[in-house]
Amino acid sequence: MRILIRNATILPMDTRDHVMRGSIAIEGRKIVAVGEVPPGFVADKVIDAEQCIALPGLVNAHTHASMVYFRNYRDSVSDLHDWLQEIWRLEDTLVPSDIRSASKLAIAEMILGGTTCFSDMYFFQEETVSAIMESGIKANVGLTLFGDEEDSARRIERSLGFLRQARDRSDRMLRYDIAPHAVYTCTPGTYRLAAAVAREEGCKVHTHASETAREVTECKAQYGRTPVSHLDSLGILEGGAYLAHVVHPDESDIALLARRQVTVIHNPSSNCKLGSGIAPLHAYQEANVPLALGTDGASSNNALDMFQELRLAAMLASVSTGNPTALSPYDLLHMATAGGARALGRETECGSIETGKDADIILIDTSGAHMSPLNNPFSALVYSAKSSDIKTVICAGRMLMEDRVLQTIDLKAVTEEVLDLWRNIQGREG
Amino acid sequence: MRILIRNATILPMDTRDHVMRGSIAIEGRKIVAVGEVPPGFVADKVIDAEQCIALPGLVNAHTHASMVYFRNYRDSVSDLHDWLQEIWRLEDTLVPSDIRSASKLAIAEMILGGTTCFSDMYFFQEETVSAIMESGIKANVGLTLFGDEEDSARRIERSLGFLRQARDRSDRMLRYDIAPHAVYTCTPGTYRLAAAVAREEGCKVHTHASETAREVTECKAQYGRTPVSHLDSLGILEGGAYLAHVVHPDESDIALLARRQVTVIHNPSSNCKLGSGIAPLHAYQEANVPLALGTDGASSNNALDMFQELRLAAMLASVSTGNPTALSPYDLLHMATAGGARALGRETECGSIETGKDADIILIDTSGAHMSPLNNPFSALVYSAKSSDIKTVICAGRMLMEDRVLQTIDLKAVTEEVLDLWRNIQGREG
Repeated sequence: MRILIRNATILPMDTRDHVMRGSIAIEGRKIVAVGEVPPGFVADKVIDAEQCIALPGLVNAHTHASMVYFRNYRDSVSDLHDWLQEIWRLEDTLVPSDIRSASKLAIAEMILGGTTCFSDMYFFQEETVSAIMESGIKANVGLTLFGDEEDSARRIERSLGFLRQARDRSDRMLRYDIAPHAVYTCTPGTYRLAAAVAREEGCKVHTHASETAREVTECKAQYGRTPVSHLDSLGILEGGAYLAHVVHPDESDIALLARRQVTVIHNPSSNCKLGSGIAPLHAYQEANVPLALGTDGASSNNALDMFQELRLAAMLASVSTGNPTALSPYDLLHMATAGGARALGRETECGSIETGKDADIILIDTSGAHMSPLNNPFSALVYSAKSSDIKTVICAGRMLMEDRVLQTIDLKAVTEEVLDLWRNIQGREG
Repeated sequence: MRILIRNATILPMDTRDHVMRGSIAIEGRKIVAVGEVPPGFVADKVIDAEQCIALPGLVNAHTHASMVYFRNYRDSVSDLHDWLQEIWRLEDTLVPSDIRSASKLAIAEMILGGTTCFSDMYFFQEETVSAIMESGIKANVGLTLFGDEEDSARRIERSLGFLRQARDRSDRMLRYDIAPHAVYTCTPGTYRLAAAVAREEGCKVHTHASETAREVTECKAQYGRTPVSHLDSLGILEGGAYLAHVVHPDESDIALLARRQVTVIHNPSSNCKLGSGIAPLHAYQEANVPLALGTDGASSNNALDMFQELRLAAMLASVSTGNPTALSPYDLLHMATAGGARALGRETECGSIETGKDADIILIDTSGAHMSPLNNPFSALVYSAKSSDIKTVICAGRMLMEDRVLQTIDLKAVTEEVLDLWRNIQGREG
């Protein structure tokens, strides 16, 4: 399949504030030209992108896809502790078939919002893998670990072979990472094991860190170190890890993350909604800590919309520093594209619109009232654009959405499945 | 014209967390029944609202509509001071015909985002009035004052008669308020005059107050009082005023606003984007200060989307208090509907879905992936809904938008007008 995108305003996200006008030629999975159409290129499909911005597909670098069930569930009628107890009670009743439909609904929402790659951390990964493969989206699936070394070894034993096969079968559209949950749910032994397995497998470690002030206090009390320093002492930060949240680092944590070039995944909606705090993005940026963006799960967001995250990240960066230019719109878009691709070990494959990379591209309509005049296209995407402006989503050269219609997922059917399953789940006894 | 909305999930916003299922019957400008269809009611138009939430039309209680020109204009390439100088230079070149088209584009964006009433503060009010009348939206147009008593008397002399006529001609769809800009741009004499005219005219005073820490410091230095206390000393807070921003109140300001029952208009995007700070919403709520919500102008937002404001207001309330239940979704939606109606002196006319009130109603589609499962409808509207979910907008019984198509504004034509004018404005010498 050869696709030609014409007349686009292209933000390649390869160098700062770079804007081009022109075409993008796609052959099979790859971008074969950006700017000029190569002589002799005959397209099977031509997309006129007049009045559209072409941006690399967004990378949602931290989520728990299947938690869509708990979206807006009792989140205003009880306090956080009671609410979590209720979520955990229902989570304990989930079975694999619940996860496949929920994953598919989450992927549908992500594609509609311009996400072409995500990193997931949850249970029953086999089911999420099926949903990913059917939908054509890219993902790094976390082999999620909890508890001590023995528990973790069992989980690895159970899932690693399957995930390796899925990676190879999908031609690395799907990859896996080792995903110990957090320092307060995993023993040091589990983290050491995660680091060793990640090294052997050539994958990343994906974990939560320093999400709340309480976590930091308790980690210091238990291990005499901050969560970041504790993870470093266990070898986690050396082989290329990415840490979700990191809302409460101290100065030496920031220096350590910069030295190790470990990516912080910013989850602004979740950090606000749960009252966790505002991560010091400007300080990270100043220290040269790699940054990416994620939605976290729908239970603490309550959506999987990277444009909402971008806008909120911008707002928090300005208000928390008192400096409206603390983070530039380019820097924010970089987090949501190239920064995410790097975190997930895919920097040579995607994250920017360049010849030779996979064709992970979204087209955003700029003709809406709220985008007129466009003026600065980077600012327009961060502050004014909505996910509903995305017309077309292409992942590895395949159309996942065209004129806002999903091409690989029957949205109505999957929504009905999820609603049926959700009624059933609520009726279960924990 | 008789309209019947059937099968809706209705959030009337009349009492806390009230949810109904059923119909809304509209006759002419008014709601004649909510819940059951009255016997013998024959509709000219029936709207099936299955899978939709019916909510009162949103009230954008503080904006500068015509500033859409400056949306995303050079906002990341220079510092705030340089940027403001550039905006002011261009503003000085604006002529009345620039304002009519810009107002219409802003109104289009507001209707697409579910706003049925707004409060405006800008220049050349005659042009904005024309755009309002043609579009069928409701608005309180500010008779904007700057400078000293003499300047203000001249402006009042010039515009008051016109605004009175417009109010009467529009059957009070359009009203006017007296809108002295701010304590740092208006003399005490201007404020005293504004209070007197508002009292005579039976309208409100709309002004900016305590937007930045610097404004507070300078006001104390000049007048020995905080901006809120200074306004009170000039008689502004007694006749029913509403104050935009109020990001930096002290404790006695909060007590005073509560005692006077003066509404604070929260503008979270603008306050974040400009680095002004986070208004203490929870403290206002605890003290029983009336609250409403606004977008401010597109130059500091950079959109006019009340759903984005709702979500950001929720996020800031939780993160700034560390308390995820600091403001309930009901309270937030109240700010955007009934709270706004009260601020604008329209509490008996709109702001809730009740028999006898004007039919200002929006229908929000809940079938999207990001709204499934719906669970708590109040949370779903605040955290998950997007303005693109709004299908239908009715204002005073008139369809302003149907299935996302504007009924009273030719969006393509007005967008082209604005883009042409904007090219022209950028070429002018200040």
